[in-house]
Amino acid sequence: MNTINKRLAALRAAMKTKGLAAYIIPSTDPHQSEYVNDYWKIRTHFSGFTGSAGTLVVTQNEVALWVDSRYFLQVTKQCKDSDVTLFKQSIPHAPEHIPWLCDVLENNDIVGVDYRQFSKSQIDYLAENAKAKNIKIKNDEALIDAIWEDRPQLPTNQVVHQPILFSGESTQDKLQKIQANINKEQADFYLISSLDEIAWLYNIRANDVDFTPLVISYALVGKTESYLFCNKNRFDDTLLKTLKDDHIIVLEYDALTEKLPTITSEKTIITDPSSLNYSCFDAIKGTFIYQNSLVKELKAIKNEVEIANAKKCMEKDGVAMTQFFMWLESEIQQREISEYEIGRKLDGFRQKQANYKGESFSAIVSYKNNGAIIHYTAPKEGSAMVKNDGLLLIDSGAQYQNGTTDVTRTVFLGKTATADEKKSFTLVLKGYITLETIQFPKGTVGMQLDSFSRMHLWKQGLNFGHGTGHGIGSYGMVHEDAQGFATSMTTSRGSEVHKENQFTTIEPGFYKEGAYGIRTENVVISYIKQTTSYGDFIGFEPITLFPIDTRLIDFNLMSPEEMDWLNSYHKKVYNTLSPMLNAAEKEWLLDKCKETSN
Amino acid sequence: MNTINKRLAALRAAMKTKGLAAYIIPSTDPHQSEYVNDYWKIRTHFSGFTGSAGTLVVTQNEVALWVDSRYFLQVTKQCKDSDVTLFKQSIPHAPEHIPWLCDVLENNDIVGVDYRQFSKSQIDYLAENAKAKNIKIKNDEALIDAIWEDRPQLPTNQVVHQPILFSGESTQDKLQKIQANINKEQADFYLISSLDEIAWLYNIRANDVDFTPLVISYALVGKTESYLFCNKNRFDDTLLKTLKDDHIIVLEYDALTEKLPTITSEKTIITDPSSLNYSCFDAIKGTFIYQNSLVKELKAIKNEVEIANAKKCMEKDGVAMTQFFMWLESEIQQREISEYEIGRKLDGFRQKQANYKGESFSAIVSYKNNGAIIHYTAPKEGSAMVKNDGLLLIDSGAQYQNGTTDVTRTVFLGKTATADEKKSFTLVLKGYITLETIQFPKGTVGMQLDSFSRMHLWKQGLNFGHGTGHGIGSYGMVHEDAQGFATSMTTSRGSEVHKENQFTTIEPGFYKEGAYGIRTENVVISYIKQTTSYGDFIGFEPITLFPIDTRLIDFNLMSPEEMDWLNSYHKKVYNTLSPMLNAAEKEWLLDKCKETSN
Repeated sequence: MNTINKRLAALRAAMKTKGLAAYIIPSTDPHQSEYVNDYWKIRTHFSGFTGSAGTLVVTQNEVALWVDSRYFLQVTKQCKDSDVTLFKQSIPHAPEHIPWLCDVLENNDIVGVDYRQFSKSQIDYLAENAKAKNIKIKNDEALIDAIWEDRPQLPTNQVVHQPILFSGESTQDKLQKIQANINKEQADFYLISSLDEIAWLYNIRANDVDFTPLVISYALVGKTESYLFCNKNRFDDTLLKTLKDDHIIVLEYDALTEKLPTITSEKTIITDPSSLNYSCFDAIKGTFIYQNSLVKELKAIKNEVEIANAKKCMEKDGVAMTQFFMWLESEIQQREISEYEIGRKLDGFRQKQANYKGESFSAIVSYKNNGAIIHYTAPKEGSAMVKNDGLLLIDSGAQYQNGTTDVTRTVFLGKTATADEKKSFTLVLKGYITLETIQFPKGTVGMQLDSFSRMHLWKQGLNFGHGTGHGIGSYGMVHEDAQGFATSMTTSRGSEVHKENQFTTIEPGFYKEGAYGIRTENVVISYIKQTTSYGDFIGFEPITLFPIDTRLIDFNLMSPEEMDWLNSYHKKVYNTLSPMLNAAEKEWLLDKCKETSN
Repeated sequence: MNTINKRLAALRAAMKTKGLAAYIIPSTDPHQSEYVNDYWKIRTHFSGFTGSAGTLVVTQNEVALWVDSRYFLQVTKQCKDSDVTLFKQSIPHAPEHIPWLCDVLENNDIVGVDYRQFSKSQIDYLAENAKAKNIKIKNDEALIDAIWEDRPQLPTNQVVHQPILFSGESTQDKLQKIQANINKEQADFYLISSLDEIAWLYNIRANDVDFTPLVISYALVGKTESYLFCNKNRFDDTLLKTLKDDHIIVLEYDALTEKLPTITSEKTIITDPSSLNYSCFDAIKGTFIYQNSLVKELKAIKNEVEIANAKKCMEKDGVAMTQFFMWLESEIQQREISEYEIGRKLDGFRQKQANYKGESFSAIVSYKNNGAIIHYTAPKEGSAMVKNDGLLLIDSGAQYQNGTTDVTRTVFLGKTATADEKKSFTLVLKGYITLETIQFPKGTVGMQLDSFSRMHLWKQGLNFGHGTGHGIGSYGMVHEDAQGFATSMTTSRGSEVHKENQFTTIEPGFYKEGAYGIRTENVVISYIKQTTSYGDFIGFEPITLFPIDTRLIDFNLMSPEEMDWLNSYHKKVYNTLSPMLNAAEKEWLLDKCKETSN
């Protein structure tokens, strides 16, 4: 029996013992994190699927892996030898498996979950769907532990302070904003379980999850005293003192459910039901006030220091990208290089930059037809060999202590791109430019803007199957749960208003199955571009600095305004990066940034 | 005391007697109609505000009239002498007055309503907001009758059959679709209270409400026998026989709440909670299945006969518009003409067309600064005198037995428009063209498309304060509660998917307070423009036929594609209309449609 099927058999046996007709395994941890610590990679353990989003629903008859279109091909590949079946979500992140599950279950069946992996909203939604058939939900926080042999341990690495030099705002000032809200709502506490919100609020960082400098913890902000639930031995004395000065008491991570009832007894607690895990919710006996997360809202607006640092990061990233692509262009003339090696090499150039902390996500280096697999990861062994021919898509980014980067470039290797490749690339580029150069009244949400990135593809009967952008953190999460661009209101990317001083990616793409993938992505900063009697109008400025491959542009399809954009962007890239480059690099970049016309 | 204040004093006295702290008066009738019979013009009676959308909330301290930005100026004018206070809704049709009311009321207060004027969803929303303060909702269907002297009577005019020649689908075929749904849901009845849905389903028409050929009635569709609640003396024998042949039993309108409990006792009834009035809901003792209205969905897709008829209507309307504008252009050289007279004259030209039944809404003829009042109505006495100078906006439409029209043109009178006027007009036109020529994948909703009509204005720091279009009926409602273009998902115009064979208006505008208003509007029909491996792509074809005033176009702002659109649209207008025109009219139209270049 294949390993995955063996694990599934053990899970089903345990479910039977416990009387569970179904068990739901989301991809998240108790903090609703996108990237999770190995301890919480339960879904990967039981399905073999390594993608970042997807839910596994196991019954005695079905092993249903629900993923959105980004992962269809990946699931097909990774799950082909096991009993895991691909279930296609039509809307990313929508809980489409819930109505399905309630449909396949019988009356009075019991669904098992680990409350820690679900938000209050998610459990409420499950309960609502389960009502008609009187399906019961049972919390079992021990089931997985019992059947997962050699389960990894939770992290013990050192927690570090993020200095004001990079954060731009003291913990005290941040806490004051939360405390003002507590007072306004006549509440006593503000409870946070999102790791990136805690990292931002308390100005702390660690390496607890992949690609993101987060600290596995809970934060309980009080009117004067606040708490951080995180093992004390992970802090040095200096940081403990810093926290103490900010009236933050450090308690053990595991003590949360024991301490919460006492601390919050007969108190009023503000929390965001979309992120608070249901185990916490269940433990608290006080009164709740539900609010959209204030921390998320504050964090999404970057301060001047964060903005200045982000710009510096983008320069470092641009230098690394220049050195890398210069190396690639030369090396590929000599030999075939694997996608995997290319990814490592790019990271190698970034590592030489100051304040480098690691990749901000698993880099996507996808050659030719692999490019059409939207969230492709080149395996360490046996990844495709890249030749000096065809399209190569590289989506990558890094964590620096002063910022987070995320950039995609599609480049042409070889002599001449085909007319079809050029047309597709140009339509994507036009979509990027249209969205990046638009300005719109304050109050506009991502769903109203997303179509600008698609209109040129749509006109040719083409489209792409992912959102067009996301918020990005400041030495934080590469995908912030904040503003962005999406085709629906079911994610914050579609539903959130764009405000000034936010970092957002713009990343339209086009994917031709079996042939190639194209994506062009910059991080942009939003600002008030114009104020008239019709209000404030927000616009974007790109802060990512690396040239677009002009050999892939069909200049006949470009409008004069689009040509102006291209030349002015390239001028900015060259002028900003060249002082940091050596003579050869300068010359190489100058050629890539040279003025073009149609 | 002013008349409105006297009426309000009587209302407050009655509220006091009945123990009501507040009374809510929406603008609608028991059928959630947009235009209502005089009998139901309660909000106008107690506020003086004649606009089509707005809610009056009366407490002992406040007379709050909640309207959206379309009506801000109108309310200021119409309510300036009374105690009525303008409350600005930020989102059209959103029930923003409910949280406000629950905020100003005290614990245990009672809010009075007439259940017939509220849908189940609306009462549910009110109840949800009222819970925190234990505010009670009291139904009083007699309060208004007691204090409104000389209240108009409900209509008694003849109900007529809409023949298949125009409807394109027999009542029997339509009923079968509803009955299939009843069977599928294992239900017994389908209850409809929306007048336009009943008119469509039963193929009947009358003149019960302003501008719309509807019959005040309720429909209860059964598996074999169906009911129409409408006074029998309003039907002739032929129509009664037609209905009988379709197994439709006619019962008195007022008998509904008496008959419903008997007919539906222990039965299962499908209904749309967003349109069913709460009085009906309250009367039924059976089991409900809530569904988005299937009739609404079916009705929004036009059949071939309706499409062919609509095109004929647009030709007739185009001829009337040609004759009218030709008259106006000549007459305005001789004398000043009032806005009101212009509106009547335009209607006069339409009246000469076959199958003319009346205006489809109160025509907006707004000169210069009046144009900035988005839903302006020129009063019979004392409307502005139009001279041969400046901008004139005319938004008008008609009901023909074979279709409904709605068209807006802004024309320049006099010698030369200013650069500012031309720029504004051109930006609006570019928005119209961008939205009309886009194609988009099936599944796209109005909110994803609306921004295309605004992007050119946005780029100049400009915007307009209304949605960009709405569904339109087939000898039915000029504003169908269906697909359209809007900036939010709170109305069907933003949230509904565009499908093939729908009629929708595209009508971007721009309004400069104190100066002018500009709007350009055509009805378009949607169709599958392209099918690729990326799916079906929907596009639009304009069916309204009347030239755009080229004297208002700044050709420097037009792209080559936009110029092509303009010339090809004008060619189509001339070629289609000219065979129906006399020599002088032809010549006039030829000049208006002549090819232009930049």
